[in-house]
Amino acid sequence: MPSQVVSNMRPLRVDLMTRVESRLDAFLATERARWAGVDSRAGVPVDAVTALVAAGGKRLRPAFCVTGFLGAGGDPDDPTIVDCAAGLELIHVAALIHDDVLDAAEFRRGSPAVHAKYTAEHAALGWRGEPRRYGDGVAILSGDLANVFAERLAHALSPGPRRIWGEMLTEIQVGQFLDMAVAAEGVIEPKLSRWIAVCKSGRYSIHRPLLLGAAIAGREDLAPAFEEYGEALGEAFQLRDDLIDAFGDSETAGKPVGLDLAQHKMTLLLAEAVQRDGRVRKLVSEPEWDTAALRERLIESKGDIENRIDVLVERAHRAIDRAPLGAAWRNELTKMAVEVAYRNR
Amino acid sequence: MPSQVVSNMRPLRVDLMTRVESRLDAFLATERARWAGVDSRAGVPVDAVTALVAAGGKRLRPAFCVTGFLGAGGDPDDPTIVDCAAGLELIHVAALIHDDVLDAAEFRRGSPAVHAKYTAEHAALGWRGEPRRYGDGVAILSGDLANVFAERLAHALSPGPRRIWGEMLTEIQVGQFLDMAVAAEGVIEPKLSRWIAVCKSGRYSIHRPLLLGAAIAGREDLAPAFEEYGEALGEAFQLRDDLIDAFGDSETAGKPVGLDLAQHKMTLLLAEAVQRDGRVRKLVSEPEWDTAALRERLIESKGDIENRIDVLVERAHRAIDRAPLGAAWRNELTKMAVEVAYRNR
Repeated sequence: MPSQVVSNMRPLRVDLMTRVESRLDAFLATERARWAGVDSRAGVPVDAVTALVAAGGKRLRPAFCVTGFLGAGGDPDDPTIVDCAAGLELIHVAALIHDDVLDAAEFRRGSPAVHAKYTAEHAALGWRGEPRRYGDGVAILSGDLANVFAERLAHALSPGPRRIWGEMLTEIQVGQFLDMAVAAEGVIEPKLSRWIAVCKSGRYSIHRPLLLGAAIAGREDLAPAFEEYGEALGEAFQLRDDLIDAFGDSETAGKPVGLDLAQHKMTLLLAEAVQRDGRVRKLVSEPEWDTAALRERLIESKGDIENRIDVLVERAHRAIDRAPLGAAWRNELTKMAVEVAYRNR
Repeated sequence: MPSQVVSNMRPLRVDLMTRVESRLDAFLATERARWAGVDSRAGVPVDAVTALVAAGGKRLRPAFCVTGFLGAGGDPDDPTIVDCAAGLELIHVAALIHDDVLDAAEFRRGSPAVHAKYTAEHAALGWRGEPRRYGDGVAILSGDLANVFAERLAHALSPGPRRIWGEMLTEIQVGQFLDMAVAAEGVIEPKLSRWIAVCKSGRYSIHRPLLLGAAIAGREDLAPAFEEYGEALGEAFQLRDDLIDAFGDSETAGKPVGLDLAQHKMTLLLAEAVQRDGRVRKLVSEPEWDTAALRERLIESKGDIENRIDVLVERAHRAIDRAPLGAAWRNELTKMAVEVAYRNR
């Protein structure tokens, strides 16, 4: 293949992402001002959502949504894409807030998780009732509010994109539930765990946002290529996530690590190890897990997992090579795959 | 005014409500079958939502939405009204499921609350982790799922009704939060408590559903009359709710009673009593409430509250008398006001 000059699409994408950030900021500031006008306390759940948005995060879902849209030839001045991408980040924030209650996780994006922060505030101020009940309550309602804001931002979706949006949201909740149920019951079914990982994380992080962006631009024909790219890269993303939890340090990750093993989570990483290694299967069959022993077994398979990530990234690249997209956008999506699969947080 | 024969619109409304029930049943059955096909456990959050829908409830919000729509001259064969009214009931179910976690309420609609049921199941089966964490988790995710289902049912709303829908959902969450915060902090501000009661309950039970129905029928001109009717009747509805909690029995109510006082909830009933009776103000200023003494004081003001309900119902009736509606629908809304304000559960 002759070498060719391919334009760099990153600036176009970054520009649209800047508008997504502004939209998020403006929307949340308006809501805060409005509710703080009713009573000073009424801003609290808006603040909880705003703080998590402001604390950073990878903006993975908006980024893939915007890229799917631009790659499909969407008009960068269409306000629908900005609103929808902003809404996607709020869906993610809502899922994180609720997930941290489910997992009793104390930190998120480098700060105390919402439930933990407000449990501590209740205890410190000696308010009435049980601090945990109050902290969990703030988290439940803040997450609910983030979901409401997301739906309000997604107000202008036409029927095609709206179906994808609704499908994605349903998968998130069912996936989250299965994740929790399998951990509680101590189920060892690698196939089911794999399905859960793909459903609750990979699919909604990459595949669905890309599809949504393309559908807003009216390019449903991109669905097969985006599905192949998204499912492969989603799995690589999840394996990297699992590796960070198992072997990363919490300072770099901005959240506690080691929680998956501590909470008996049958991650994709562990599900693969169970299939390959009888000793891992035996260890996870115990009612209480020997996390040190498990971690030792998993270290041995780190190389295999890295190889698997390489294979998945290659598959994603091949899917994009064949996609009916301009060369510049194929190039951008190829670069994004590498960034997602080899990130360190 | 000469007496005239006014047709009875109840059968038309009941017929549309029957279709709302069928829509709810069919939607939930389809979701259940779909997810149970993935894994037997995946149906659990759908079942939690379905059980609460099937357990009854007054269907107040769908009823007012449907009545607003038909009164406004909407076409009974328009699928949007059926979907939207079904979605309203799921919004309500989601709010109940999450509210019961916030309040640690054990029963709802005559059965164990979702969190209580699954906490007990976890404990009975000896699963891993903490039963309460699991039960609360099932409730959080089932409520989230009910909200997602509601949004999917509301897919076809045009911009006007969608704005009302989004406004209503935002008010519910902020109102719920303030309710919880005021109880935790022990705030005695009757005006704020009144605002909370109107926002979190009255408005979303009657006013917003009516407005939504009228907007779907394209009759935004009905907004002022529906606002006056809805706000007055919403307050009467809430006062009746408070009376049932304070003086009803739990068997008739289908839920625990006496919780408001036990949880230091500054209800509308109590807020009115605080304004009228210095002894009540003194009692609620204590860090721990003497619920027996409070109940005794409240019994004395039962008559006043009943009078207040009468006044509110009259105000609702006058608003409807002046509304640009056909006589038959004015009559139907007049009857509904009486049924709502003088119900016993």
